[in-house]
Amino acid sequence: MSHMLDEIREQPDVVRNIIDREFHQVEALAAEIKRRNVAFAYIAARGTSDNAAVYCKYVLEIQHGLPTAIAAPSVVTVYDTVPKLGPQAFVLGISQSGAAPDVIEVLKCARQSGALTACITNEPTSALAEASEHVLTIGAGEEKGIAATKTYTGSLALIALLSTALDETHPERLVYLQRAADAMEKSLGMDEALHQLVEKYKAMTGCVIIGRGYNHCTAAETALKITETSYISAKSYSAAAFQHGPIAQVNSGFPCLLFAPDGKAFSAMAELGEKLRQQHPALISFAHDAAFLASSETAVRIPASVAEWVSPMVYAVAGQLFAYWLSLAKGLDPDAPRGLEKVTKTV
Amino acid sequence: MSHMLDEIREQPDVVRNIIDREFHQVEALAAEIKRRNVAFAYIAARGTSDNAAVYCKYVLEIQHGLPTAIAAPSVVTVYDTVPKLGPQAFVLGISQSGAAPDVIEVLKCARQSGALTACITNEPTSALAEASEHVLTIGAGEEKGIAATKTYTGSLALIALLSTALDETHPERLVYLQRAADAMEKSLGMDEALHQLVEKYKAMTGCVIIGRGYNHCTAAETALKITETSYISAKSYSAAAFQHGPIAQVNSGFPCLLFAPDGKAFSAMAELGEKLRQQHPALISFAHDAAFLASSETAVRIPASVAEWVSPMVYAVAGQLFAYWLSLAKGLDPDAPRGLEKVTKTV
Repeated sequence: MSHMLDEIREQPDVVRNIIDREFHQVEALAAEIKRRNVAFAYIAARGTSDNAAVYCKYVLEIQHGLPTAIAAPSVVTVYDTVPKLGPQAFVLGISQSGAAPDVIEVLKCARQSGALTACITNEPTSALAEASEHVLTIGAGEEKGIAATKTYTGSLALIALLSTALDETHPERLVYLQRAADAMEKSLGMDEALHQLVEKYKAMTGCVIIGRGYNHCTAAETALKITETSYISAKSYSAAAFQHGPIAQVNSGFPCLLFAPDGKAFSAMAELGEKLRQQHPALISFAHDAAFLASSETAVRIPASVAEWVSPMVYAVAGQLFAYWLSLAKGLDPDAPRGLEKVTKTV
Repeated sequence: MSHMLDEIREQPDVVRNIIDREFHQVEALAAEIKRRNVAFAYIAARGTSDNAAVYCKYVLEIQHGLPTAIAAPSVVTVYDTVPKLGPQAFVLGISQSGAAPDVIEVLKCARQSGALTACITNEPTSALAEASEHVLTIGAGEEKGIAATKTYTGSLALIALLSTALDETHPERLVYLQRAADAMEKSLGMDEALHQLVEKYKAMTGCVIIGRGYNHCTAAETALKITETSYISAKSYSAAAFQHGPIAQVNSGFPCLLFAPDGKAFSAMAELGEKLRQQHPALISFAHDAAFLASSETAVRIPASVAEWVSPMVYAVAGQLFAYWLSLAKGLDPDAPRGLEKVTKTV
């Protein structure tokens, strides 16, 4: 049995546990963000956690109007500069291991400058947790797979929970988050269908993966999983950036994965699908909308429709299963990606 | 004759003209940034200009300690939300045409909220210029090539000039910027060498392009130029992000372009080169350092060493020439990329 597949299946429970266990911790952080009246957020992360940071940017900007920057950690570690992250800044580090030296360094500098600091980690006794005032714990148990799965969706769940706590005028958000966990459970039922359909694509050597808005992170995370476990060039784009140049690479039969859940970004994705079809790619669509799916070469029907802002947790599961089965179809071992270790320490 | 090659060759003069013509305009903006004591910067851009925005983030954070976010324009255009960009924010739009609807929208909202607004554009009478209080003009003349070249380095030059004006304690920076224009001129002399060496790679269907720190933007912009004009999957990474997963895709003979100018990020690039060699890729190195170049399969020796923070202008020229000749070697027309128009209007 594969660690990766085991851990993909643990995800609905990881999210449910987070809702039950971390709400008070998240509430305390939310209260401090409001009390300090912070002007902007600054997030440091690497790898998979960087994609969780992208999700966090959309959530904080769209739902709370908080301008959010994603750190370029080399500013601190290579150029020895400390951006002015004073009391008006909320600085969040995301690292499942809590051992990423560059992320720790950003948090340490920020805390010294008086910023409000917090982290999301699976290791509550890690150096990152020590460096942060508020610690949000993923609590996913040990992650043995090299390709992070349950710590990714666990990070998203903590971000969604923080968003819920930040705005008391929307208590229904907690219910949407719980429904997302149920939808993730349902999505696990797609396992066999995805196992079958990747057969058709096992010779692929490259693909593009496109999302928009909240699901920009889903495209990026699926691209990372596919690149890590199938050793192919999978490149993600936002639907807008894609049309500013990279669309030129699409020729007949080129695999394009589209993540298009119901919601405000859906129509932009549907328009892109229309435009793309002129170049006759192999469209592999992940969606709930029946008409959209019907117009694609390969339809991956996500079994439940959830509120758009929590949909990245649900669509991530489908992306992970696609990556997992593609890796096996290519005769590779998704638990042992070439040249990777579980904790990558870059500075 | 090709528009793209013509415009690559115009770049040293575009930069020199900017230094001569725009300094007072840039000084006025710098004075306002200092007077307002802004807490963070927020940059909206698309496509090639998005890569200029990445450069701007490194410059503002490293040289001025100003935390800098890159906008996700869909927050405004798809989700109808206005991040709170009040008087403490400096908001910069970058668009060569000045016609990008999403960038214009971010600037309009920011100005209404009292933020300090500015734009970098090649069209001083554009809607973007109208929406901004301060207009920095690239002045590159009409850009006929679909693949933007001179407006990209022109944008970088305006950002570098702004950095010079923001810090009077470093008057030498203006001299470094002038030297960069001379180094760009020298780099044009690599034209024939690059023409020859791409022959070896004309069958490539994918590659990765890696930079670090200031030259993260150079990797991203070269990837965009190659994807647009040669229709191949060229994916850029920062040297750190690359080691957090995507390095798994590199197998024997896989083309990896490394941008490694002299400076603080050099040693991280040299270490990555060492690590990469274990996977036996085709390393194509753009550098000035002789020892680093000697250990690569293909060495692109940049003829002049300049201050690291202005090196992206110089290395961009080499990346553009590589993309241009690769496109021709593949029998394509770099002036007519498939599916692209000069002004891409996404919202």
